[in-house]
This record gives sequence, C-alpha cells and structure tokens, in this order.
Amino acid sequence: MNRQGAGVLRLKSRPSVVAWHAHVGRKEKQGPLGSWFRYYSEDTTLGESSWELAESRLQQLAFEGATAACTLQPDTLLGGDLQNQCTAGAYAARRTALPYVGLYGACSTMAESLALASLLVDGGYSGCAAAVTSSHFCSAERQFRFPLEYGSQRPPQSQWTVTGAGCALVAPHREGRPYVEQVMFGRIIDLGITDINNMGAAMAPAAADTIMNFFKDTGSSPGDYDAVYTGDLGEIGSRLLLRLLERAGYNLTNHQDCGLMIYDRATQRVGSGGSGCGCSASVLCGHLLPRLCSGELGNILFVATGALMSTTLFQQGESIPGVAHLLNIRGC
Amino acid sequence: MNRQGAGVLRLKSRPSVVAWHAHVGRKEKQGPLGSWFRYYSEDTTLGESSWELAESRLQQLAFEGATAACTLQPDTLLGGDLQNQCTAGAYAARRTALPYVGLYGACSTMAESLALASLLVDGGYSGCAAAVTSSHFCSAERQFRFPLEYGSQRPPQSQWTVTGAGCALVAPHREGRPYVEQVMFGRIIDLGITDINNMGAAMAPAAADTIMNFFKDTGSSPGDYDAVYTGDLGEIGSRLLLRLLERAGYNLTNHQDCGLMIYDRATQRVGSGGSGCGCSASVLCGHLLPRLCSGELGNILFVATGALMSTTLFQQGESIPGVAHLLNIRGC
Repeated sequence: MNRQGAGVLRLKSRPSVVAWHAHVGRKEKQGPLGSWFRYYSEDTTLGESSWELAESRLQQLAFEGATAACTLQPDTLLGGDLQNQCTAGAYAARRTALPYVGLYGACSTMAESLALASLLVDGGYSGCAAAVTSSHFCSAERQFRFPLEYGSQRPPQSQWTVTGAGCALVAPHREGRPYVEQVMFGRIIDLGITDINNMGAAMAPAAADTIMNFFKDTGSSPGDYDAVYTGDLGEIGSRLLLRLLERAGYNLTNHQDCGLMIYDRATQRVGSGGSGCGCSASVLCGHLLPRLCSGELGNILFVATGALMSTTLFQQGESIPGVAHLLNIRGC
Repeated sequence: MNRQGAGVLRLKSRPSVVAWHAHVGRKEKQGPLGSWFRYYSEDTTLGESSWELAESRLQQLAFEGATAACTLQPDTLLGGDLQNQCTAGAYAARRTALPYVGLYGACSTMAESLALASLLVDGGYSGCAAAVTSSHFCSAERQFRFPLEYGSQRPPQSQWTVTGAGCALVAPHREGRPYVEQVMFGRIIDLGITDINNMGAAMAPAAADTIMNFFKDTGSSPGDYDAVYTGDLGEIGSRLLLRLLERAGYNLTNHQDCGLMIYDRATQRVGSGGSGCGCSASVLCGHLLPRLCSGELGNILFVATGALMSTTLFQQGESIPGVAHLLNIRGC
C-alpha cells in the first residue's frame, strides 16, 4: 500500500510537474505578485459575451499556455471551477478532445485536480495529465452574492474572488522539475459557520484538520518545510488556522496564504483577501512552481481550501462545510 | 503503462466491487425494477425539511447500507450529484469523517466515481474506496427547470429525474465479487444541441464516442459483452446512439439503457425515460451488481452519460456538452 495513517498517499515514482501556466486579470496583475504574472488580460471579458464564457476562456488560455511550454501532449484533463455545474471547465474542455474528469472541490480544486493528476501518473494510468482550475470575480459575484450592477456593499470579512486560472501538467519524474512526493485528500469539516461572507472562517477548521493529520501521519513538523501555503483563507481564516494549530501544539511560523499574497489589502480594497479556485491556482502556477523550479523553494506544503456551500443551502439556513486537500511538492 | 490507445485503463489487480446499496423513491419502486429495489422511501422528503437535504439523506442511506454490507471500512469517499456546488454529496459526506473527493460529471458521476475509486484501489492508494451518487426529482426540477408548484407542462422528449442514490465499495480483488477490469474516461462532445429538455440527444454523441473508442482500442466488439448499459439516454438518446454506432459499423444489439429500464414509459408518464445521476447509480447498485455477483451477467460495459450544461449557460444560448465514462465490469 502507498497509504499511511489517515490518508497520506506516497507517490513512489515522484511524478514531476513538467509545465505550468497562469493567466490572470487586471487587478491581480496590479497586486504584489504582478511581476510573476506574465500572462494577463486588461479586459476581463476576454472578448467573450458573458462572464461565464470569459472564465472558460481563462481555463483555455491556461491549458494552452501549459501545453505550449512542454513537449509532452497531455492524455487526460482534470479540472473544475465554482460555476454551477462546473461549466467553466466543461466548456473549455470541449476544445481539447481529451478524456475529461470533472471535479468539484470549490476553492480546493487546484489541489484536488493536481493530486489526482499526480496519482494517475504515479499509478501508470496517464503519461501526462493536466490539472486546470479557474475563477472569475464577475461570474462568482452574480452567482454567489449579487449581480455587479446592484453595486451592493461588501462586508469587511468578505473576500475578493480572483479572476485567474492555472494549469499544471504532471508527467513521470524528470530532473530539473518540481515533483509531487505526497498527497492527502481532506475530510469535510463543518463547525457551524453560517455567514456566507466569511468563507475564511468556514474553511480554516478544514485546513487545520488536514495539516494536523498530515503532520501526525508523517511524523513531520512545520519546520520540515520551507513554507505551508494555504489556498484562500484570507486574513480572518489565516488567523483562525494559526490559533487552531497552536491549540494542538503546532507553531506554524512559516505559513503563507495565497489569498493574502495575491492582493495588497491596504490599497486594493479586497476585504479579508483573495478567494476563488483561481486564487491558489494562479499563485501556484504563476509564483510557487517557478520558485520551486529555480530552487528558491525546496519543500513546500500546498493546502488549497474549499467552502462547499451553495446559495440554495445557505438560504435554507444550513452551515458551510469546508474541505482542504494537501500536496507536498519538492523543488529542484 | 496501464494505458492503451485513446485512454483505456487496464486495472491489473482487478479490484472488486465488494459491497453496494441502492435507495430509491416511490416511483422507482413502482417501476419494472421494483422487485430489485429492496430499500426505498414512500415519502420522498425522507423526513427532511428541503428537497436538497432529502437528496443528501439518500446518499447517506446508500453509503451506510453499503458499508453495513461489508466488513471493510472505506478510507476514501468519492461522490457527486447534480445540485449546484454538488451539495447533496458534500453535506452527506460531513457525517463520514472520510477524505472526500468531490466530482462533477452530471449523470455520468456514478461511472466517474467508480472508475476513480477502482484506480485508487488498483494503484494501492486506497484499501477500500466508496463511490456514491444521487439525484432527486424535486431538487433537480426546481434547479434546472421550474419549481414543482408551477405545475408546468413537460414536453414529450423530456426525461424524468430519478429519485435515488447508489453507493459501491471497491477493494482489492476478492473471489465471489464482481470486479472492474478496464475503465475509460470520456471526452467532451458537443454537437450543438440547445434543447434543455432533450438531454438524450445531447448525451448520445458522447456515449457513441466513448463506446467506439473503447472497441477500437481494445479490439473488442459488441458481441464480446453480455450487454452494454448506458446511463440515461432515454428513448430518443438510445435511438440516436444506435444510429451513430451503426454508421460507424457497430451493431449494438445488446444495448440497454438504465433510463429505459427503471420506469415503465407506457404507464408512468416519464417522457423519454429516466435521468439524473441517481438513475444509473441505482440501476447499477440495485440491479446490475447483484446480477453480476450471482453470475447471471458475466461481462458488461457500464457507460454512464452526463450533460454538462447549467441553466445560466443554457439561458445564454450555449449548446449542451455531453460526456460518457465507461467501466468494463466482470461477474463472478
């Protein structure tokens, strides 16, 4: 068995992330990681007639960029997004003629898709698998909150959905490329948060659960990693995560959150930080993988978190379940 | 590599489906497969306060039924459904404390989840993986079409969403249980159907594509299998499938469609037949797996089909992409 404890999966063949590509919007280009995002669109419609199709186009651009950066042709596509029935991914995948595995993990989808892609390659079921994920501020706002035209006020604990997509290609181990050593799928944790504007609080317990289980099962500790990157907990969720881990005896001094890295909260008016599947996807594919490849990062945990509610269940008064999937990625 | 041609994945360890459970509603119990459905609810609210929670409860019952029928405890849960953000699955999974891999493949989800579960077991990443899928007529109607209270008319080409869930547990090969020999993830095919009431027509080209690719890559032909079961093409989609395959030189005389098996179209007023993730899930787990286990069926193809549109994209005038995932399951 390649399985340990509560569910750490060890990838013996150490599949490599051989290519990656991120494509973001204007606001993300203007943020602190702007210089890392080489590919972006000033016009967030991307020339499409709807926000939903614009998001689909983001996925297509990320996929095409990643495949252009690689001599291998992917044979499997795994992806997802936040749209109802995951249409951004499905409509983008129409153009690829690849077997398509549709996923829904809310904002954890980049980790979920990359973990499954790595397992398919490690198990010998794929020679090159593509993991692709996106979100778009405008499609998410009108679906989860209000149409932009309402001009509704945003409470300070809310987060700003990233307009962006990331795609990573996984293939058998190759020197000079980052590789996936371990993955862990998270459990669904619901501590009863019912504020749809406070996703960070809903997801933090799931992130804490996955991270603690991983440390326990592997016998490792925070200091063994250069950094632990969570997906999009934002300011509030990040603080909660650190407190939950502290209570359990883990002092996570090397924590970073993609939702806090991608925007400048002081000047960009994004509330508690960035969010959306595209947040961790574009930070991973635009910033972390290049740094892992250059040797600047040697050993990281990438823990993307998702809040699994819908507006229907929220309006029925249900609380918001969270989930967090983890990858241990090694640099070159 | 355990991969052949366009994407037939051969599971060398022949993982077994060691337990299964289907739970359906009243209308399904009254249908032609009624005697196979031992577990059902007369009251389709299942005692819950909303249709969405009722569907969640169906998944929970299917999961609990399958685990009760098995001495192994699952270590991974893979599932999905048709609800926005796949909430039926996520809310049911809250109770399991298992690592959760959320999927979206529309009505193809039973095949998608069972295929991934089988790969995880075959690759040694899971000692027992649960695949669970559901749909509920009332939650689907109000989400995709009209609230039931409108009493809107249904066109004859429409299909009736099955109220039901199925759960199958996959574990390393065990004598006396059906096993999964090959799986194939389908490509997304969109021939431009824009009628949201004609899902069969939207999905038939995807089913034809997957089935033809499978025959080509394996060098097998329809006669090599006891039967080829599609998910929920209904009357119209089934006729289209047979015509598409005939054109390509395949005479599929042993085709059956779960959507045509589960209801009596003459008396149950279901339009073109049954549909929904729960259709193929409950027929597989309530009818096919028991027959594979008893030896009545020896070698089948199970091809669940999904239509990947949302109401948003449909209202924007977009066409409906289809997908079909395939499993080759062997009896005892």
